[in-house]
Amino acid sequence: MFVGLCALLVSLGALLWPPQPARRNVSLIVTGGIVVPMDGAARIINPGAVAVDGRDVVAVDGAAAIAERFASATTIDAAGQIVLPGLINTHTHAPMVLYRGLADDLALMEWLQKYIFPAEAKTVSPEFVRAGTRLAALEMIQSGTTAYADMYYFEEEIAKATKEAGIRGVLGETIIQFPVPDAKTPADGIARATAFIRQWKGDDLIVPAIAPHAMYTLDADTLKQIRAVADRERAPLIIHLAETLDEVKIARDKYKMTPVQFLDSIGLWGDRTLAAHAVHLTPADIQILAKRRVGVSHNPESNMKLASGTAPVLDLQKAGVVVGLGTDGAASNNDLDMFEAMRQAAFLHKLTSKDPRALPAATAVRMATIDGARTLGLDREVGSLEPGKRADLILVSTRGARQTPMYDPISHLVYVARGDDVQTMIVNGKIVMRDRRVLTLDEAAVLDEAVKWSAKVRQAVGR
Amino acid sequence: MFVGLCALLVSLGALLWPPQPARRNVSLIVTGGIVVPMDGAARIINPGAVAVDGRDVVAVDGAAAIAERFASATTIDAAGQIVLPGLINTHTHAPMVLYRGLADDLALMEWLQKYIFPAEAKTVSPEFVRAGTRLAALEMIQSGTTAYADMYYFEEEIAKATKEAGIRGVLGETIIQFPVPDAKTPADGIARATAFIRQWKGDDLIVPAIAPHAMYTLDADTLKQIRAVADRERAPLIIHLAETLDEVKIARDKYKMTPVQFLDSIGLWGDRTLAAHAVHLTPADIQILAKRRVGVSHNPESNMKLASGTAPVLDLQKAGVVVGLGTDGAASNNDLDMFEAMRQAAFLHKLTSKDPRALPAATAVRMATIDGARTLGLDREVGSLEPGKRADLILVSTRGARQTPMYDPISHLVYVARGDDVQTMIVNGKIVMRDRRVLTLDEAAVLDEAVKWSAKVRQAVGR
Repeated sequence: MFVGLCALLVSLGALLWPPQPARRNVSLIVTGGIVVPMDGAARIINPGAVAVDGRDVVAVDGAAAIAERFASATTIDAAGQIVLPGLINTHTHAPMVLYRGLADDLALMEWLQKYIFPAEAKTVSPEFVRAGTRLAALEMIQSGTTAYADMYYFEEEIAKATKEAGIRGVLGETIIQFPVPDAKTPADGIARATAFIRQWKGDDLIVPAIAPHAMYTLDADTLKQIRAVADRERAPLIIHLAETLDEVKIARDKYKMTPVQFLDSIGLWGDRTLAAHAVHLTPADIQILAKRRVGVSHNPESNMKLASGTAPVLDLQKAGVVVGLGTDGAASNNDLDMFEAMRQAAFLHKLTSKDPRALPAATAVRMATIDGARTLGLDREVGSLEPGKRADLILVSTRGARQTPMYDPISHLVYVARGDDVQTMIVNGKIVMRDRRVLTLDEAAVLDEAVKWSAKVRQAVGR
Repeated sequence: MFVGLCALLVSLGALLWPPQPARRNVSLIVTGGIVVPMDGAARIINPGAVAVDGRDVVAVDGAAAIAERFASATTIDAAGQIVLPGLINTHTHAPMVLYRGLADDLALMEWLQKYIFPAEAKTVSPEFVRAGTRLAALEMIQSGTTAYADMYYFEEEIAKATKEAGIRGVLGETIIQFPVPDAKTPADGIARATAFIRQWKGDDLIVPAIAPHAMYTLDADTLKQIRAVADRERAPLIIHLAETLDEVKIARDKYKMTPVQFLDSIGLWGDRTLAAHAVHLTPADIQILAKRRVGVSHNPESNMKLASGTAPVLDLQKAGVVVGLGTDGAASNNDLDMFEAMRQAAFLHKLTSKDPRALPAATAVRMATIDGARTLGLDREVGSLEPGKRADLILVSTRGARQTPMYDPISHLVYVARGDDVQTMIVNGKIVMRDRRVLTLDEAAVLDEAVKWSAKVRQAVGR
């Protein structure tokens, strides 16, 4: 008893003397996990911790070092979890989740003409887009995506719903030559896009952008006008590029050039420009994309499911082109799970290059985080866990049977983790999901609303 | 009050008169789900039900029709779930889950020689195999696999652990020319395999088999002896076939034949024979496999991750060869999730054939169920939900955000479902997992044991 009391006093003494350096109070500490900062140093800190104050990361270090320097009323225990930057989906069409699995295993033209175009003509409205974006945001939060690039219609509704959901979006109002639900002419579309960009510029979560659909669905003059708007408004420009051989054929027949060359000839390639798919490229195309510093969004699942082909990702990376990962819309994938995109990218390029060392797990994680941020011009804000950057991070469970044992956390992120393993998400310093409970959306209401819309979609296409 | 009493009497009258036809009492009824029987009729019954008595399915029908004919003290509500035959993994090495993610992204020879062979030499023992099989069985149960084909060492331990876990196995004791942990010589291996087959023959869950490793790791004489054992004991024979170009080269250099031709020339192809991988085949090889009625196990994830190549699945199916799906061992995949195998098979063959209509979702589900059963000679017992067959079935949730909306359950099974969506599993009429709780294994103990073994594996390879 006496000995015990002495020990207690000695312990108290050690705590009180020498006097503790004052610890800085911060808004949130995530501690005890396997921290993968993706800060360029290829390091893993275990057990590590991340201190967050307001919207920003203030420190990334060992758990003990963070405990010495920081205190917070809100602490998240990340034991048994991997802590990494939120995943960045560089290509999707969020509201199309409402067409998920509407029609699969069809030739592209049949799929578009019998299902997607009729469904879009009859159902796309501001209400549809809001409901679809809420469902997409719920799915993205539940699978670890903290930021995404979008191309669709009524993009202002997508912006509102994305901001309400508490995640980050680079949202491109789409412009196309033929009449679409939110614009009768491309001129209407350009006017809408300009207004949208001006309305949302400077928002802390939403980056408004302009999205010419593709070189084969817009004429040269409209494409030039769109580039001019992007330059004037300093907005990102997002475009589909060389997704199919049909597009390559159209470019050749109409312009005697490849899609990349044609777009280069009219001056479309510029700063903060993202090309989605980039499947069918010549070596000269790759050089142009590198020279113009165009970012590429690679969508392995969509490219496989739609039989589009294999993008030359290894060659692009070798040439210095930054390549991020995307899922594409859920109508052609059929989900928004970026863990699947990482795994598929690694598998696809090993197979195609006949080299199991190609596109290793660490590269797949880099593409889904910091490289994705670079393609969107967001790498000063997000994509890695570093002091001064926004606090966008996820906690991924590693405790299931299918994740046991774990020899290498990076391998597990790519080859065994799934979106469902994401337990907790923080975006811009705020907790968006904690232990699988999404705090920003009413999950049951979002699902109910989606089911209601699906009945209208069914009716629209007669299924 | 009086009115209420009258209503009660009228209700009782309606129940008692006319007299109800006697309903047959059965051990289990699964009701209210979307039933996908895979019985050859391509039908979906919604809401459907399955009546099970003892180990067998006794009826598959609409929920109302089943309720009229059957009663049971045990009823499982499958509302919001897809009910389908348990998935059949036609190729794995169960205990290798303990090497999951030990070393990825390496050339095959480096992976084998620096990691897998040293690890196996230092860790494979009856205890290791038991611990690994328990972990693999836990993962398979949690991801919907009710039956699997295996090739490894100490297969009798695998049989015991599989039976305890309550799932079905076609388990091949592996024979290889060089000394392995359970046999110093191939003769020892053949003796072990023979004893194993005799010990387990007639078991209601385990089908003992013999597994010559491959044509390049065994001499012709040993292969012939193995065929003789399989014939004499009427046991299935499982072999790796034409997985890599190296194997094709060895066959050409040594025998001036393809692996398929060489094995045909020595009479290895026979009844109930399963060839795993079958990546590098000539048209003549495909004809031989069809003529000899050899079943093929296609492993799209392993073949991509190890850059082995693309098996000619569409050509095999066109030639009449039955093709099942497998995951391969978790050291080369890195999981045992057959939903991923289905999705990957559909994606891979659409890409390779440049046709998005190739290998549609319905074909992938067929390969993972009834065709898998056919490759294992088990199609009279399992692979579809039909009266008289064993009751091996799974219930798959469809209620998450990533599964909403649902236009087509078959599409969802392949393109959005994951192993984690499996809620309930019944094998041989017994409930093995209910609402994600595995009833046959102590999950925490299995994981603890696996983590302990992983420390020894780490030590063995110096990681």
